[in-house]
Amino acid sequence: MSELPTEYTDLVTELRQIGVLRSCSAVLGWDEQTYLPAEGAGHRAEQLALLAGMSHERATSSRLGELLAALTDEEALGGADSAASANVREARRSYERSMRLPRRLVEELSRVGTLAQQAWVSARRDQNYAQFQPWLEQTMQLKREEASALGSETGNLYDALLEDYEPGATAADIQAVFTPLRQALVELVGAIRDSGATPQEEILTRSYPIEVQRSFARHAAEAIGFSFDAGRLDEAAHPFCSGIGPGDCRLTTRYDEHHFPGAFFGTLHEAGHGIYEQGLPRDAFGLAVGEACSLGIHESQSRMWENFVGRSHVFWQHFYPQAQQRFPGPLSTVGLDDFYAAINDVRPSWIRVEADEVTYNLHIMLRFELEQALISDDLKVADVPGVWNETFHAYFGMTPPNDRLGCLQDVHWSAGLFGYFPTYALGNMYGAQFFEQAGEDLGDLFAMFAGGEFLPLKNWLNENVHAHGRHYRAPQLVERVTGQPLSAEPLLRHLRGKFGSLYGLQ
Amino acid sequence: MSELPTEYTDLVTELRQIGVLRSCSAVLGWDEQTYLPAEGAGHRAEQLALLAGMSHERATSSRLGELLAALTDEEALGGADSAASANVREARRSYERSMRLPRRLVEELSRVGTLAQQAWVSARRDQNYAQFQPWLEQTMQLKREEASALGSETGNLYDALLEDYEPGATAADIQAVFTPLRQALVELVGAIRDSGATPQEEILTRSYPIEVQRSFARHAAEAIGFSFDAGRLDEAAHPFCSGIGPGDCRLTTRYDEHHFPGAFFGTLHEAGHGIYEQGLPRDAFGLAVGEACSLGIHESQSRMWENFVGRSHVFWQHFYPQAQQRFPGPLSTVGLDDFYAAINDVRPSWIRVEADEVTYNLHIMLRFELEQALISDDLKVADVPGVWNETFHAYFGMTPPNDRLGCLQDVHWSAGLFGYFPTYALGNMYGAQFFEQAGEDLGDLFAMFAGGEFLPLKNWLNENVHAHGRHYRAPQLVERVTGQPLSAEPLLRHLRGKFGSLYGLQ
Repeated sequence: MSELPTEYTDLVTELRQIGVLRSCSAVLGWDEQTYLPAEGAGHRAEQLALLAGMSHERATSSRLGELLAALTDEEALGGADSAASANVREARRSYERSMRLPRRLVEELSRVGTLAQQAWVSARRDQNYAQFQPWLEQTMQLKREEASALGSETGNLYDALLEDYEPGATAADIQAVFTPLRQALVELVGAIRDSGATPQEEILTRSYPIEVQRSFARHAAEAIGFSFDAGRLDEAAHPFCSGIGPGDCRLTTRYDEHHFPGAFFGTLHEAGHGIYEQGLPRDAFGLAVGEACSLGIHESQSRMWENFVGRSHVFWQHFYPQAQQRFPGPLSTVGLDDFYAAINDVRPSWIRVEADEVTYNLHIMLRFELEQALISDDLKVADVPGVWNETFHAYFGMTPPNDRLGCLQDVHWSAGLFGYFPTYALGNMYGAQFFEQAGEDLGDLFAMFAGGEFLPLKNWLNENVHAHGRHYRAPQLVERVTGQPLSAEPLLRHLRGKFGSLYGLQ
Repeated sequence: MSELPTEYTDLVTELRQIGVLRSCSAVLGWDEQTYLPAEGAGHRAEQLALLAGMSHERATSSRLGELLAALTDEEALGGADSAASANVREARRSYERSMRLPRRLVEELSRVGTLAQQAWVSARRDQNYAQFQPWLEQTMQLKREEASALGSETGNLYDALLEDYEPGATAADIQAVFTPLRQALVELVGAIRDSGATPQEEILTRSYPIEVQRSFARHAAEAIGFSFDAGRLDEAAHPFCSGIGPGDCRLTTRYDEHHFPGAFFGTLHEAGHGIYEQGLPRDAFGLAVGEACSLGIHESQSRMWENFVGRSHVFWQHFYPQAQQRFPGPLSTVGLDDFYAAINDVRPSWIRVEADEVTYNLHIMLRFELEQALISDDLKVADVPGVWNETFHAYFGMTPPNDRLGCLQDVHWSAGLFGYFPTYALGNMYGAQFFEQAGEDLGDLFAMFAGGEFLPLKNWLNENVHAHGRHYRAPQLVERVTGQPLSAEPLLRHLRGKFGSLYGLQ
């Protein structure tokens, strides 16, 4: 291959600098959620707004525009399919999107996002939606302004925002997969309810000392391949994973002495994200091929480790003896099968991040429905708690007793992340597809897990998914890896197989 | 007073932005010392270098130059003594200094500083100076380049660097106070040695569970007035205080189960810095009147709380019953007077931050001597361990058994902080002056401390020292507050009084 154009080299330098600057915001964002003193919130908002403004300035510089304008010949970049072409293509897309946003709006979104999150933390703690409402109102106004400025091919404001998380996807595409999935899930939930089986959920709400939970969760994250030399695990009100930069990826979780699964599966979930971040090519930092493909693909990793691996019977064949040793109080007289049934108890519940694998996607569909209505202004911010509760009742047959267990449970809207939620359900589907393929390629994954061997799967994901970064769009990547387009079928096969046998369904 | 010029308002806006940007570096710097994963060090160096470069760019912008050029009329700023004049004067000084440094050098100093600190951490842990030597060589080269570029009125390279920490001071000024102080201290150390008294130092090396140390140190920091709503206390290899911005000031300490004083007095020391930072006018963030006066004044606060308060008999009249309750193992059979004698045991020791009040200043003088020689290139980096050990022997009559207890103990040189050390001894002198004055103004401080009342002193410092920020230069501030110029006499009075009675000297 001939040498790449010098403009490409200059572009790479510029993109890395923008990446480094954005990663400074990532550190401040992580700190805001973990260690920031209460009275420091105002100053943190100033810091993040300034950095967002400076990043935006660099991301819209005339220099960047000139470099991109000079790099239209894909042949000179090694052909349409080369990494260089992917880097230029994504840089152009991102430049064009940034150019549509005025710096004032970017800074304002950052500032309001920071303060709204602080307001959300208090409102959630105090179960007081009114404290949060004015912040959400400001946020919606800014997000609608952002969506109008960005525009979308469909003319749908929501699609303009979705593009940030799942490039190329539309609300209509997603609805087309969600509608039949919802139908199938509702049937499965019904069959499980009718089975009459009642897992002893109470096992999981006994006393699990937090210090022991902490070390066990860390141990499990390490066992599946998350590196603590290049990462951390801390506490935050809402669990997240932040891939700050090469060698620095941070997970958070939250502990509740009387709820074992929250922190444990939460940590596996975030570690799944972290393993993806740690698997991205370090030397491509700041470039498309060094960043995650899409949030849907990101969630395919987290949900796979959390559910396909972490909630499997074989995983606990390996880990349960350790769990019993670490938690003799609650677990010494509980058998593996009862524990396994308890962690896979399927029933309607309030909190999305703690929902079982079957009902989880229904939580997503609810949010997808509401956030589209918020963006289109068909749903007023003041009406969110009421409409949340009504919709929740329609999906789950019960009404949240307070907003902490209802519309205040998630961090996303406070942070302005509209269009993010559907990627969780996409991730469940992508994850099922990858997992089936890994099984075909690697042989008996379940035997490996039972023996405590998780690195073959991790290495397979490193090679087949992580190493590509954003070289391919999500639909392309899935086709390359599995030979199939996005489909709900592998997910439904997994759920029907696993819960069919667990609940003795036909 | 008439309205301030619009250029002044614009200058304030610009200075605040620079302050906000620098405070982003402060967060990343704090994180580097506390929570950064090992493999993230390289990327952190890139982040800090980029931010340093961007800050430097703003601090040398033509816009800033124009605003300063338009603000030469002190009358229009409310007179030479007004806060606005102080803000402009310090902004001009800082602008002129920045203009002398090329951006490349600023970024390189930042990058090398970050990596050298990481190298220092490993070298110190492994007691292996050779690991650190190449980094210190690079640092010295850059610091000499920096000092030459900055220049100084005396023509002394060291003075050019000292200006960053103690504006207006020179090495010759400092030497002039240090020479008689050294003489007096050596005499006092001799008299104490000859007294034949042998405090039971062993008391302090019994087992003090770290979790209990942690909560006790936090409790004491809170009791003297450090606010945890606007601050934190974490762990780091080298204790420090970072005043990030309004409402966010962070202390660190380190715990050793078998050395009680390290973390406890270290925390009081850092809390003293933190109380100063928390006492600066929040609405003047980014301006001279919103920042600390000098490092000497900063150290006057930390050393005062650590020693004049924390190592006093009356402090422990209040805290000792709590200490006995928290640490029954090591302390239940130890009387207050023996404990008090142990924490004030005067004898030559290896580690500066754990030295007693009398020998402490000798540690500083050693560093002051060596770092001047390093900057002038009379001392080669390769020779540091040997010369450190020889000089240490000359001062203390003993030779460090390894470099961890010798030249690798402090973080300063690895971070490029040359000219910082003498401010610790200045702080001891300033602190003694302030403390005498506070006693005159407030009445019987010792009776207050014995009753657990520390807020009168804290409030006095808030009002007389903290509230002024950098409105006055350190020598002026001291004269304003105490009516006297810098003098070693109050410190010597304190030391002779306290240790004279403790060791039964004449």
